[in-house]
Amino acid sequence: MRLPDATNGDLVLIPTGLGDAPWTDYLPAAVQSRVVDIRHFVVENARTARAHLKRIDFPGTLRDTDIRELPIEGSEHELDALLAPALKGENVGLMSDAGCPAIADPGARLVARAHALGVRVVPLVGPSSILLGLMGSGLNGQNFAFHGYLPSAKDARDRRLRALEDESRRLTRTQIFIETPYRNEHLFAALLHVCQPSSRLCVARELATANEYLRTLSIADWRKTPPPLLAKRPTLFLLLA
Amino acid sequence: MRLPDATNGDLVLIPTGLGDAPWTDYLPAAVQSRVVDIRHFVVENARTARAHLKRIDFPGTLRDTDIRELPIEGSEHELDALLAPALKGENVGLMSDAGCPAIADPGARLVARAHALGVRVVPLVGPSSILLGLMGSGLNGQNFAFHGYLPSAKDARDRRLRALEDESRRLTRTQIFIETPYRNEHLFAALLHVCQPSSRLCVARELATANEYLRTLSIADWRKTPPPLLAKRPTLFLLLA
Repeated sequence: MRLPDATNGDLVLIPTGLGDAPWTDYLPAAVQSRVVDIRHFVVENARTARAHLKRIDFPGTLRDTDIRELPIEGSEHELDALLAPALKGENVGLMSDAGCPAIADPGARLVARAHALGVRVVPLVGPSSILLGLMGSGLNGQNFAFHGYLPSAKDARDRRLRALEDESRRLTRTQIFIETPYRNEHLFAALLHVCQPSSRLCVARELATANEYLRTLSIADWRKTPPPLLAKRPTLFLLLA
Repeated sequence: MRLPDATNGDLVLIPTGLGDAPWTDYLPAAVQSRVVDIRHFVVENARTARAHLKRIDFPGTLRDTDIRELPIEGSEHELDALLAPALKGENVGLMSDAGCPAIADPGARLVARAHALGVRVVPLVGPSSILLGLMGSGLNGQNFAFHGYLPSAKDARDRRLRALEDESRRLTRTQIFIETPYRNEHLFAALLHVCQPSSRLCVARELATANEYLRTLSIADWRKTPPPLLAKRPTLFLLLA
C-alpha cells in the first residue's frame, strides 16, 4: 500500500457523450475545462477517443497528445506503465467509448492500480445510460442491481430471466441488464414470453440522444403494444416484479 | 395504459449539486437552459429546491413559480394532481434534495405515474454519488448492486455485512450501501471488524465537492490506516470480496 502523494498527478475519469450531441448537452463546463488541460489519455479505442476530444474542442493538434489504448487483459506491469505520467506529477485521463469509464467496461482495473500506487482518482460528472435509465424508469431506485450481459443461449437466458424476476419480487429490486444490440429484439421477446404479466419492464433506448426512447409498462401491456425498434440500437432493460 | 401523447408536457428529472459548487461544475449548459424554462416543480423539500433554483440562475421571482412538495406516502390521486400541468402541455420538473431524483429517494413513484398517464419522462445528466463512487472505486463496474441503508441494529447489520460479502465473492459483485451520516464511523468500524482481510473496501465521501475523499484499500490495509473523518459527512461504501 502506498500513501496518496500530493505531488502525483490525478487519474481523471472522463465521461463521453452517448450520441452526436454537442458537448454542452452532456458535460458541465468545468469538466470540459479540466479535460482540455490533460495531455495523457488511456482509452478504450484511440480513434473513438480522438473523435471525442475533437468534439469537446480539445485545443492544439492531437498528434502531440499521448493517447494509449487500455489492454483488455493487461498485466499489472502494463497498467502501471500507463499510470507512469501520474507518478511524475501529470494528470492522466481515462475515457471509454461511450458513457462513464470503469462502469460496464474494462477500465476498473486501471482505477484499482491508481489506488494501489497512491494516485488520486477523480471521477467527473457526465452521462451514464444505466443511471439515466434507472432515474427515468420509475422502478425502484432504492434497491437495484446491474448484471451486464445475460447468457446468449436461449435456455440459459430464459432460466436467468426467471431467476432475476424471482429475486426482484423477493427483494423489491430493480434488475438492470443489457444485450449486444443486434440481439435486443430477441431479449425483448423473451422478456414478454417468460415474465409475469404484472411485472414492470422499462425499455430505455439511445438515452441522451435525439432518438431517446424510454417507456415503462407492465408485461401484460407490452404484450398489447407494438414493439419498439430495438435492433442495433443501444438499449438498457430494467425489470421490477 | 395511456399512449404517450405528444401534446403533453414532459416530466423532466433534474439532478442537483452535491455540494456548494457553482452549477457550471456539475450541470451541462443545455440542462441548465432546459430547467430555467420550467414553471412547475415537484420537489423533496421546497426550501432546498428554491436554493437549488437560485444557484442555477433561475430567472424571475421564485414567488411566481409553482413549487410543490412530493408527499412521501402520497396516493395515486395526489401524485396525478402533481402531474396535472403536464397533461395540459406544460413541463414539470422533479428535483430531489441532492443528486439524481428517483435514485435512492422517493421520486420513483411520481415517475411511474407519468409512464402510466402517457407523460414522456426525460432524465437529465448530472451528478450521482452512487455512479461517481462506483467509477472511482476501481471495483467491479460490470456487476454491482445498490442496497440503500443496512439494518441499524448491530447484530442484524453484521449478519448483513457477512451475507453481502459472501454474495460479492460468489458473483464478483460490487456491493454499494449507505448509512445515516452520524452513524458512518460505526459502519466503517463494523466493516473492518467483520470483513475478510483480502476484501476491498472503497470509502467515497462528499463526492463532487471540495472535500471529496475517495479511497480503495483492502480491509487488511484499512486496519493499518488512520480512519478517514466520516461523522456527519455523506459517504458511500463499496465492497468487493
